[in-house]
Amino acid sequence: MLKENSETVQAVMADIGERAKAAAIDLRKTSAEQKDRALNEMADAIWNKRADLLAANAIDVKCGRETGLSTAFLDRLTLDEGRIRAMTDGLREIAKMDDPVGTVIAEWERPNGLKIERVRTPLGVIGVIFESRPNVTADAGALCLKSGNAVILRGGSDSFHSSRAIHGCLSEGLSAAGLSEDSIQIVPTTDRAAVGEMLKGLNGAIDVIVPRGGKGLVGRVQSDARVPVFSHLEGICHVYVDKSANVGMATQIVCNAKLRRTGICGSAETLLIDRAGASTLLNPIVEALKNAGCEVRGDAEIQESVSGVIPVEEEDWYTEYLDAIISVKLVDGVSAAASHIAKYGSGHTESIVAEDEAVVESFFAEVDSAILLHNASTQFADGGEFGMGAEIGIATGKMHARGPVGIEQLTSFKYRVRGTGQIRP
Amino acid sequence: MLKENSETVQAVMADIGERAKAAAIDLRKTSAEQKDRALNEMADAIWNKRADLLAANAIDVKCGRETGLSTAFLDRLTLDEGRIRAMTDGLREIAKMDDPVGTVIAEWERPNGLKIERVRTPLGVIGVIFESRPNVTADAGALCLKSGNAVILRGGSDSFHSSRAIHGCLSEGLSAAGLSEDSIQIVPTTDRAAVGEMLKGLNGAIDVIVPRGGKGLVGRVQSDARVPVFSHLEGICHVYVDKSANVGMATQIVCNAKLRRTGICGSAETLLIDRAGASTLLNPIVEALKNAGCEVRGDAEIQESVSGVIPVEEEDWYTEYLDAIISVKLVDGVSAAASHIAKYGSGHTESIVAEDEAVVESFFAEVDSAILLHNASTQFADGGEFGMGAEIGIATGKMHARGPVGIEQLTSFKYRVRGTGQIRP
Repeated sequence: MLKENSETVQAVMADIGERAKAAAIDLRKTSAEQKDRALNEMADAIWNKRADLLAANAIDVKCGRETGLSTAFLDRLTLDEGRIRAMTDGLREIAKMDDPVGTVIAEWERPNGLKIERVRTPLGVIGVIFESRPNVTADAGALCLKSGNAVILRGGSDSFHSSRAIHGCLSEGLSAAGLSEDSIQIVPTTDRAAVGEMLKGLNGAIDVIVPRGGKGLVGRVQSDARVPVFSHLEGICHVYVDKSANVGMATQIVCNAKLRRTGICGSAETLLIDRAGASTLLNPIVEALKNAGCEVRGDAEIQESVSGVIPVEEEDWYTEYLDAIISVKLVDGVSAAASHIAKYGSGHTESIVAEDEAVVESFFAEVDSAILLHNASTQFADGGEFGMGAEIGIATGKMHARGPVGIEQLTSFKYRVRGTGQIRP
Repeated sequence: MLKENSETVQAVMADIGERAKAAAIDLRKTSAEQKDRALNEMADAIWNKRADLLAANAIDVKCGRETGLSTAFLDRLTLDEGRIRAMTDGLREIAKMDDPVGTVIAEWERPNGLKIERVRTPLGVIGVIFESRPNVTADAGALCLKSGNAVILRGGSDSFHSSRAIHGCLSEGLSAAGLSEDSIQIVPTTDRAAVGEMLKGLNGAIDVIVPRGGKGLVGRVQSDARVPVFSHLEGICHVYVDKSANVGMATQIVCNAKLRRTGICGSAETLLIDRAGASTLLNPIVEALKNAGCEVRGDAEIQESVSGVIPVEEEDWYTEYLDAIISVKLVDGVSAAASHIAKYGSGHTESIVAEDEAVVESFFAEVDSAILLHNASTQFADGGEFGMGAEIGIATGKMHARGPVGIEQLTSFKYRVRGTGQIRP
């Protein structure tokens, strides 16, 4: 580990930035075959060195236990053979995907004969700042390489040894395929000043930052970064059940949206029920939630209709519980639901359960979140579920990337214009 | 005009931001017909009030003369009936274009039956900061409205009366079509603090800033803005003439690229000639430039081959002359040209003149600028010439919008997912 001295950190980070920029120029010209070969070599290296990875991970887990990390945190941190296998499967899947670079997104011809093509290019250098999950090292490294970008990874101090061990295997794979090891670099220090340097962009080297972690990390990145950021601060996802909904379907979708996994950003936090349908919808849905072990919070109106409901506070509507808790409210139809979502939501993912198509179209038009679903669970908010193969994260900004950020979203584009001697009159 | 007091300015700007945000929510649901009606009503209002516009403009021009503005600046500032007609023609053209909002950009179905659509949505609120040209008021206002965005316009103090008069006509058009006048607002003060407030984003109200003006303005916006910016700092455009080029075509393209209009961002500043073809290419091209009144700068090698060449300094390669001056250099083939462009260019627009297709493909692959042309003049770097109808500017950033920024680039997107009760396993 480096001597933790801010001048040293600055110099080390500037050097990492320069090397990433040079690697990015080479990657722009690298063939799909070579990138895919590197990805498969990385998977081989990880599998062959799984004993070393488990040993490195054991050091992190032991430190984590000693410093009193939570069980959930330790679970995210811990590797086992199954998780290592999942990592290598992920790398091989990404290798099989189509290369986005060079794809012609649009083409047209002008009356003067100029042929214009809009073609995908890599973004350049991606900075990924993550916390506990060591597998992000492999996932993010692979997605960036596949999309032709160089990447600078900065993992959390708790997963320092695990991430470094995985990174070693990625370097091996790059080398074996004849690619520069600077294509995927990992910050060799846990000094927080390194993050500050990345947020300033390393003298223009970093094109975009992707933070992967809790609200604290993402909030800091969003407020301090001087380069574009692909991120979501939180996922306060809503399910709106319209009076035209099928009660059985609504119950299934709400329970799945809330409870399938409560700790992910696509889990529902608030249930909005159409007042005009409350007499048939409210009881069965809330009872099903309670029976599945979910705490239900609601105002006086909800408490009068169903037993065992805990009083809701204004604060609840703004809260991403990440737990088996849901807040419930009656609203006057789809427009009132849209207003509630606009006020309290985080622009991530919302679902409507309804049979009335006109109501669905209103929902789709009035709600401005990255992902809107009809008659489906909010837990589908995921790049894999969208068929993008894998995602580096989910973005709620409106610029460039929105929703799941897969390899396509990690590209930019340029124009190729072919003429036959045209000059402008 | 407002009392120019920073607290007042802050309050006024915050109010403008809030009203723009509210207008943007309404615009999301506004039909194409209503927006187009407003655009045509604006054109009518401008034409009917052309006498008032000319009177307001005369005040600005008189002030400008008195304060000693340059002839070029006064020319950009001055309106006449022809320019007013061009403005109204522009508005009617934009009205005729297809509405980008609601367009399905991509759609696919998942094995579980979920139907996913990526659909264009407005970005929200655009801030446009411009200098002397009063017609930007109408152009930018119209492009933002067409793409469903609210806009906050901040014109230069020199065109204050002209811009306000044009803005009055835009408000009339919005009203006549039943749209909120807050859809297109103009900052009612020339206090520079207003620009500072816009760059901070007006409490999250502004989604993107578009600066229109010289390098000083754009540089300030790029360095100080805390929101995304669509812009280019300068257009240091290159023409590379390969040994395989047709001499006649190369001469025509170079002269057009440099001299058709020297003051626009797409005019060429540097000519790179393949050393292997210099004996046949250099003389005719440089002589043609000189005969057309262009000053030619080159190093000793160039000066030995052609007469009347002025010595070039290192600084020249970084310079956007915006004048009838060109710097010329011999390079060893397309890769050396690409390296020169990477070092000195601004990522805007570059052209290659060549008959050898393999060389052209290398150029397209190795050069990472927004617009690359083959056998065509760099002066085609323009949204209108690209068939986008009109542009609000040209962007050299890699995020979201790159190259000409037309109405499509002023949109974001969201996902609409249609299910039949799917829950995630």
